[in-house]
Amino acid sequence: MTGPIRVATLFTHRRPEETGPAIARLLLVARRSGAVLRLDAEEMRKHKLTPTPGLELTALSDSGVDICFALGGDGTILHALRTYAGTGVPVFAVNYGEIGFLATVEREDAEKGFERAFAGDYEVLALPAIEVTCGGGRWLAINDVSMHRQPGKRVADLAYAVGKDEIGRVRCDGLVVATPAGSTGYNLANGGPVMAWGVAGIVVSFIAPHSLAARALVVAPTDVLSVLNRSQEEEVDVAVDGRPVCTLPPDKELTVRFVNGQGSLAQLTGTTFYQRLRVKFGRLATAP
Amino acid sequence: MTGPIRVATLFTHRRPEETGPAIARLLLVARRSGAVLRLDAEEMRKHKLTPTPGLELTALSDSGVDICFALGGDGTILHALRTYAGTGVPVFAVNYGEIGFLATVEREDAEKGFERAFAGDYEVLALPAIEVTCGGGRWLAINDVSMHRQPGKRVADLAYAVGKDEIGRVRCDGLVVATPAGSTGYNLANGGPVMAWGVAGIVVSFIAPHSLAARALVVAPTDVLSVLNRSQEEEVDVAVDGRPVCTLPPDKELTVRFVNGQGSLAQLTGTTFYQRLRVKFGRLATAP
Amino acid sequence: MTGPIRVATLFTHRRPEETGPAIARLLLVARRSGAVLRLDAEEMRKHKLTPTPGLELTALSDSGVDICFALGGDGTILHALRTYAGTGVPVFAVNYGEIGFLATVEREDAEKGFERAFAGDYEVLALPAIEVTCGGGRWLAINDVSMHRQPGKRVADLAYAVGKDEIGRVRCDGLVVATPAGSTGYNLANGGPVMAWGVAGIVVSFIAPHSLAARALVVAPTDVLSVLNRSQEEEVDVAVDGRPVCTLPPDKELTVRFVNGQGSLAQLTGTTFYQRLRVKFGRLATAP
Amino acid sequence: MTGPIRVATLFTHRRPEETGPAIARLLLVARRSGAVLRLDAEEMRKHKLTPTPGLELTALSDSGVDICFALGGDGTILHALRTYAGTGVPVFAVNYGEIGFLATVEREDAEKGFERAFAGDYEVLALPAIEVTCGGGRWLAINDVSMHRQPGKRVADLAYAVGKDEIGRVRCDGLVVATPAGSTGYNLANGGPVMAWGVAGIVVSFIAPHSLAARALVVAPTDVLSVLNRSQEEEVDVAVDGRPVCTLPPDKELTVRFVNGQGSLAQLTGTTFYQRLRVKFGRLATAP
Repeated sequence: MTGPIRVATLFTHRRPEETGPAIARLLLVARRSGAVLRLDAEEMRKHKLTPTPGLELTALSDSGVDICFALGGDGTILHALRTYAGTGVPVFAVNYGEIGFLATVEREDAEKGFERAFAGDYEVLALPAIEVTCGGGRWLAINDVSMHRQPGKRVADLAYAVGKDEIGRVRCDGLVVATPAGSTGYNLANGGPVMAWGVAGIVVSFIAPHSLAARALVVAPTDVLSVLNRSQEEEVDVAVDGRPVCTLPPDKELTVRFVNGQGSLAQLTGTTFYQRLRVKFGRLATAP
Repeated sequence: MTGPIRVATLFTHRRPEETGPAIARLLLVARRSGAVLRLDAEEMRKHKLTPTPGLELTALSDSGVDICFALGGDGTILHALRTYAGTGVPVFAVNYGEIGFLATVEREDAEKGFERAFAGDYEVLALPAIEVTCGGGRWLAINDVSMHRQPGKRVADLAYAVGKDEIGRVRCDGLVVATPAGSTGYNLANGGPVMAWGVAGIVVSFIAPHSLAARALVVAPTDVLSVLNRSQEEEVDVAVDGRPVCTLPPDKELTVRFVNGQGSLAQLTGTTFYQRLRVKFGRLATAP
Repeated sequence: MTGPIRVATLFTHRRPEETGPAIARLLLVARRSGAVLRLDAEEMRKHKLTPTPGLELTALSDSGVDICFALGGDGTILHALRTYAGTGVPVFAVNYGEIGFLATVEREDAEKGFERAFAGDYEVLALPAIEVTCGGGRWLAINDVSMHRQPGKRVADLAYAVGKDEIGRVRCDGLVVATPAGSTGYNLANGGPVMAWGVAGIVVSFIAPHSLAARALVVAPTDVLSVLNRSQEEEVDVAVDGRPVCTLPPDKELTVRFVNGQGSLAQLTGTTFYQRLRVKFGRLATAP
Repeated sequence: MTGPIRVATLFTHRRPEETGPAIARLLLVARRSGAVLRLDAEEMRKHKLTPTPGLELTALSDSGVDICFALGGDGTILHALRTYAGTGVPVFAVNYGEIGFLATVEREDAEKGFERAFAGDYEVLALPAIEVTCGGGRWLAINDVSMHRQPGKRVADLAYAVGKDEIGRVRCDGLVVATPAGSTGYNLANGGPVMAWGVAGIVVSFIAPHSLAARALVVAPTDVLSVLNRSQEEEVDVAVDGRPVCTLPPDKELTVRFVNGQGSLAQLTGTTFYQRLRVKFGRLATAP
C-alpha cells in the first residue's frame, strides 16, 4: 500500500438489506480516517442514501480513487474488478455471497476488515484478464469467458485452435476459457484443473462434450486462442464472467488472449491462495 | 541459432541396430560441415566404433559443445536434456521411440534433419525443469518427478502442501508433479490437464487416489511444493523422469520447485507445440 | 422372429428428401412379401404420399402391427421405441442421423436391410426404460431423463436420493439419469460410464457440477430414485429422451424408476452391442 | 434368518490386541445362546486361546456352520466371504479397519452387534462374485480382480475384449474389474462409477492409462470379458481382492465373468447400501 486512503468507492450486491449495516460502519471508519466515500446513483438509490459530508454522489470515474470496496458475492466483486481494470485501483471485497472466492473478508468480520483497509494493512495482488474479441466488440473477463448453446436449440458444435492448429472440436453444451482466478468457477464443473493465482496461462474446457476424450488444455500466455462455431445453423451465446455480452453466429470465430496485470485485488496481509482454497473448498483430494 | 556447429555430441537408445545407419549419415553430414562428432565410451562400445578423423572419444564435458543429437525415445531425449541442463547446449532429437513428443524429426527424416541442424535451420526452446530436494540429494527433472508405492507394500498415504497449507492428502498408488513438457506423460494418465510449452507452472496429480475427488492442481512458478509421506510404515520410491533416484521414508517430506530455462530443445524452424500435439495425440476432444 | 410380417409402420426424420428413395424401396420389398405399409397423416403429408394398394393411412394404433421401421437419427428411433413401448412391436432402424447408435443398418444398406427384415433375419433385443413421475404426469424414457436449468436463470441446485438417503447435492447445470442404451448419450458428456446393453441398472450424473467431486452412480433396478429441486427460486426443465415434457418447481421432487423390457429393438442377426460400440465410438481407451 | 445359531466361526485381522476383547464378549454371547464358536489353528495361536467348552478348534470346513464373524477391515471380511462363497453361510462383519465398507457394525458397537446376530436380527444380502480363469487356475473375487505391471518393469500394454471385439487397449499401470461391492474400492481410484449393490454388471477401468480417453465400461452379467497382455516382453501381476494369485505372461489372456449369488453378507435389519455410502463416503457430489 502506497499512501493513505482519501477517496473510496463502493459496490454492493442486489440485496441492500444485507449490506446496509456494513455501509453505515464503512462510513464511520472512513470519516474517522478523514476519507470520503463515493457512491454512484444506483447505489445511492438502492440504499436510500443521499449525499452528506463524507458521502458523495459520483459517476464513478476512477480519477482520484484510492480503493474500491465490494460487498457481495463473486458477481459483485468481478464487476468492481472489471470496472477498475488496468487502473491500479485495488478492490477490497467482503463476502456476502455463497462462495466468495475473491473476497478477503467474511461478512461477520466486515468492520475489522474496513479498519485494516484504512490502516493500509493489505497487499495488492495483480490478476490477469482474458481479452475477448468477437464481431466488432471487445471485452475483458477477470474470471472466464464462456460460450453456451442457446435454449431450445440443438447441441453446439464448437472447435478451438491456436494459430492454424485446430486442437479440439466436439458437439457440446459449450466451452469455457478461464484465468487462474476463474479456474475454481465454471472450469471446475468441466473437469478442468485448479490453477493457483500466479500461474501464467489460461485453461480451456468443454461443457458437457459428447466425447470419450475431453481433456482440459492450459494455453500459454503468449498464445492467441480462437474459438469457432462450427454449426451450420445455430448461434451460441457468449458470456463474460457469467454475464451475456454477444452471440457468435454459425461459421464465425472469436479470439481470446491472456492480458497480464489487469485486476488489482486487495488482500489482508499474509493471506494466500492456498489458505483460501482450503477454507472454501477443503482439500483437493481426501480419503473417505 | 548463433554460430556454426564445430562440435556435436550424441546419445542413442538401447537398440544400436536401429540407430546405426543414422549415425553413419550424421558423421557424413558433420564432416561435410567441418564439424567433429564426440561420443562417450559407452556409445562407442554400443555402436562398435573407434575414433577416426571427425569422430572423437569424449568424457562428454560440455565445454566447447555446440549441439547434442539424441536418437531415441523420450527417455534418451530427456537424458540428453538433463545432461546439458543449464548449459545452453541445444538438444536436437530424432524419434526412434513410440511417441517421441520431444523429438523434432521422425526417424525416416533423420538425414534431412541433420542437414537442417548443421545449416542452423532450427530454433531453441527453453524448457523449465523441476528441482527435487530429498534427504541430502538434489535432482533436476525435465518431465516429471513421481512418487510410487513400493511393490508388495500397502497403498501409499501421501499429502502435498504449499507453505503451511496442506492441500491434498489421500491413500493412493502415488503422485506426479510435471512440467508443461511432462504434462503429456504420466500426468495425463492421472486425469491432469495438457499444458502448452510456455505455461509458467507445474501440475500435481495423484496416481489412482482412493477418493471421490482428486482434481489436478497447477502450482505457480514461485511456489515451493512439499510432498509428505504420511504413512507410518511404508517408504515410497521417488523417480525423476521415470528413473528411480531415491526413497522417501515414512513421515518425511521432499520439496519440489519450478526452475526456469534449464533445458534447451532444438526445433525445426516453424514447428509449434500445437502441431506436435495434433500429430502425436490427435484432437484433445473429438466427436465420435 | 415369430411369424411373417403382414403389417409394417414407418417413422422418418424431418428431412423427407433424404429418406424418400428408401421409402420407395421399402414399399417394393413389402409388396413382394404381401405386406402392407401403414403411415400416419403426418408421414403421408411429409412425403407427399396418398394411400394406394399396399400403402395405408393409419392412426398408428399398434393393433395388428408386426414391425415398425424407423428411418432417421436417434431422435426418430427413440420416438418409434416409445410409441411401441410395452407392446412387443419391434423397431427396425436405419441410420439417417450422425451417430445412430440404435440403428441396425446404415443408410447405404437400407434396401438389403429391408429384405432381411421381411425374411425374418433379425433378433429382438428388449430394452429397459425409465419411468418418470413428476407432478401428475408420467413419462417413459428409452435413453434418458434430464433436468436442466432454465435459460437466463441462475445455476440449478439439485439433489438426488434413494429412499431417505440424499446421496448427492450440488449447484450445476442439470442432471441426467440414463438407461444402458442412453449411457452413450448425454451421460457420456458428464463423465458417466458406458453401460453395455444387458446391464440391469440406471446411471445418474450431474451436468457441469460446481464441485471437486462428482462421480456417476449406477442405481440398482429395484431402487426408486428421487430428484429434488433444492433451489428457493428457480424451476428446472425436465426432458425425456431430449424432448421437454414439464418443469420441476422449486422445492419439488420427481421420481425415476427402472422398468424392464419396454422397448423392442430389432437387430440384424449376429450383431452385438460391442461391435456397435467399436464402429460408432472406436476404442474406449487407446494409446496416442 | 432361518434358524437359531448353533455353530459360529471367526476370522480376525492381523492385530490380535485390537480384537481380543471383542472375542471374549463374542464367546460370552455365544455361550448364553447355547452356541459354540469354532476357530482354526491360526486364529487360536494368534489370540493365544485353547479349546474350552464353547470354544472349539476346527479345520473350518463349512459343514454345520450357521454364521461366520469377521473382525477386521475389508481384507479380513473379503477373506471370510471368499471362504464361504457359494455355501450360504452368512458373514457378519465388525469394522476394525479404516473404511470397512462391508462391515455392518463399527467396533464400538461390537457387543450389541453380536447380540443382534444371535437374536437373528439381521438380513442376508447375496453378493455376486467375479470368476477369473488364468492359465490352469481359477479364482473367485468378491471385490475385484486387478492386473498390475511389475515393479521396475516397463509400463503395461493391456487390452480387453468381449467376444471378438477388442474394446480398449492402452499402455497403463494396470486394469481393474470390479463387482458392485468392489466399485467403491480400486475402481473408484480409476475414475470408475459407484455401483449400488443390486446392479447386475461388472465394471472395467484402466489404472493410469496413457490416453486422453479412458472411460469405464460396465459389462453385462452374461458377457465374458477377456483381458489380454499385449506386451512383447513383460508379465503382469494378477491379484484377486488385492492379493496376488498369478502372473499373466506376454501375449496371453485371462477371462473374467460375473457369477451371481456367491457371497452372503449379514446386515443389521434395515440398513441399506445408500446409508453406508453416506456414512463412509459422504455425498457423491457436494457443493464447496
